[in-house]
Amino acid sequence: MIPDIPQLDDAALAAVLRGRIDGKTKPLGALGRLEALAAQIGSILGTETPRLEQPQLVVFAADHGLAAQGVSAYPSDVTWQMVENFLAGGAAVSVLARQHGLNLTVVDAGVRHEFAERAGLLVRKIGPGTSDALLGAAMTQGQCTEAILAGREVVRSLPGNALLLGEMGIGNTSAAALLLARLAGHPIELCTGRGTGLDDAGMQRKLGVLRRVLARHPEAGTPLQALAAFGGFEIAMMCGATLQAALERRVVVVDGFIASSAVLVAARLQPAVLSRCIFAHCSDEAGHALMLRTLGATPLLNLGLRLGEGSGAALAWPLLESACRILREMASFESAGVSRESKPSMEAPDAP
Amino acid sequence: MIPDIPQLDDAALAAVLRGRIDGKTKPLGALGRLEALAAQIGSILGTETPRLEQPQLVVFAADHGLAAQGVSAYPSDVTWQMVENFLAGGAAVSVLARQHGLNLTVVDAGVRHEFAERAGLLVRKIGPGTSDALLGAAMTQGQCTEAILAGREVVRSLPGNALLLGEMGIGNTSAAALLLARLAGHPIELCTGRGTGLDDAGMQRKLGVLRRVLARHPEAGTPLQALAAFGGFEIAMMCGATLQAALERRVVVVDGFIASSAVLVAARLQPAVLSRCIFAHCSDEAGHALMLRTLGATPLLNLGLRLGEGSGAALAWPLLESACRILREMASFESAGVSRESKPSMEAPDAP
Repeated sequence: MIPDIPQLDDAALAAVLRGRIDGKTKPLGALGRLEALAAQIGSILGTETPRLEQPQLVVFAADHGLAAQGVSAYPSDVTWQMVENFLAGGAAVSVLARQHGLNLTVVDAGVRHEFAERAGLLVRKIGPGTSDALLGAAMTQGQCTEAILAGREVVRSLPGNALLLGEMGIGNTSAAALLLARLAGHPIELCTGRGTGLDDAGMQRKLGVLRRVLARHPEAGTPLQALAAFGGFEIAMMCGATLQAALERRVVVVDGFIASSAVLVAARLQPAVLSRCIFAHCSDEAGHALMLRTLGATPLLNLGLRLGEGSGAALAWPLLESACRILREMASFESAGVSRESKPSMEAPDAP
Repeated sequence: MIPDIPQLDDAALAAVLRGRIDGKTKPLGALGRLEALAAQIGSILGTETPRLEQPQLVVFAADHGLAAQGVSAYPSDVTWQMVENFLAGGAAVSVLARQHGLNLTVVDAGVRHEFAERAGLLVRKIGPGTSDALLGAAMTQGQCTEAILAGREVVRSLPGNALLLGEMGIGNTSAAALLLARLAGHPIELCTGRGTGLDDAGMQRKLGVLRRVLARHPEAGTPLQALAAFGGFEIAMMCGATLQAALERRVVVVDGFIASSAVLVAARLQPAVLSRCIFAHCSDEAGHALMLRTLGATPLLNLGLRLGEGSGAALAWPLLESACRILREMASFESAGVSRESKPSMEAPDAP
């Protein structure tokens, strides 16, 4: 169920990429973060002239039993309503996917609603939402396995060499916070944010619920146990999708707090997945900055987003395209006939 | 020469924009910085459904007499060589402009080189580079006026409703640092960075030169006096271009440290230009963060860039497009049939 993900350790290619970037007509390092991004994409795709092809933005959607405890500002029905909105083309992620030519697929990983079949929707329902994690495990270990395998299969069925991870699920910031707290050992109050916009009282209520959920599952210590106890079907499926994409050496673009929690689980299972992951942004959801630090990740954008859906991944996408084009299309000092740096400047004269 | 730029003060439109953004299918404020960006572009273009049309990336290039004092790691010849590179399509900004469908124009504002005529190049040479500001004013007040008017004319001659400001000129981080120091009263060492990549000794040399230049021109206190004493032809022309674009209510996308210095001068002449300016990024050049704070600007990106050319403006461009599309294309709660927030969560019960 969990594939072995090898490290990317082609030192020769890394050196070629570094040399190629440094030879471009610009001062050394002057393209900042874009240079590291170009080197990473080249390493993932195994080429000094990377080209991103048929990028797939996949939004995994599911409901959460824990939502019954009032941990969200929105009712659970919003999950299926937003799935309809994604498919109708009216959600933020629909608009952004159109803008950037990203193929958008919505996966029903476990929404409490029966959708009519249509293009762009994959029904891979593990169940009608998870169980309430305050009363028992959110899912059985069997469901967890099933969801991971479904996530792998979804990626396998899609073309291209880049996967953008998105999600929808009322209540899923709670699941992500629980996973971060348990798997990284951080205090739950540092992992928990306002989600879709809880007020102070709602936030206290959410924190109280999450503390009780953690106390309810003291035994859930391994990544897969924690995923079953606290996770959501969409999170487990994103975990599987990340593993499969990493195995196939696709570029994985990670959206916000929830998508990062799936990558956290995947990375605890197979650390080398992280070398394939590009973290699109640091969201405004409290806990995401801590999550990124825990993962050793440097996000590309910092725009105060807190929407999910893959919207941040879509917004960061053109930067990945730019990084590839710089590698492929920019002239070198030699090809353009541009002079290199002058001799190092004079040393400060010694006092006589 | 300096047009009156009125404030954007259509409160009714601002309210309509705010309502439109808040009615979109997302939690309030969940698109973060993108929401303020959408509101600003709507205000500039005077519509609740803004559309960016025929965006113009204009790279103003010129040489600097002060380069003779060894303030740059690169020789002055790199200015004209890079102009050739822009026009041949091999520079970073050429690649990024192609990626995003930005019309690229290079303006010879005063390069010490005679270019062959060709498409995409406008020769508006004020002189073969500025004079050495350590020996006298970089330009006469007459040349300064001529450059500002030329910048206005360049914008007037170009179609579209958005201007992206780029520049090239070996030595121009020195001019920008001097303008920031003099016009904002900051100590020169806080305004000065390594430019294209000076080492420590080069940096000390540059700082020493800039201190002497400031001392050489104690009288240059007004924006136009400072621009003539310290500026470059490309900076003066960008100042004029900014004023003209603001007058025509075009969206102005400001690149890095040098472009920001031109906007600083323009804003000291006509403060309302700032309402038309979108600051693309905070560069890695020491002094740019201070420049942005001085202007009260919040940049969109923070990618450690320090290349200039308009490369940061081009990289930020898709975010402006996204902001407009969100306003135009995203569904509202009503149109999509998505439920709004639940009732405010229960108050915490009082202790009996």
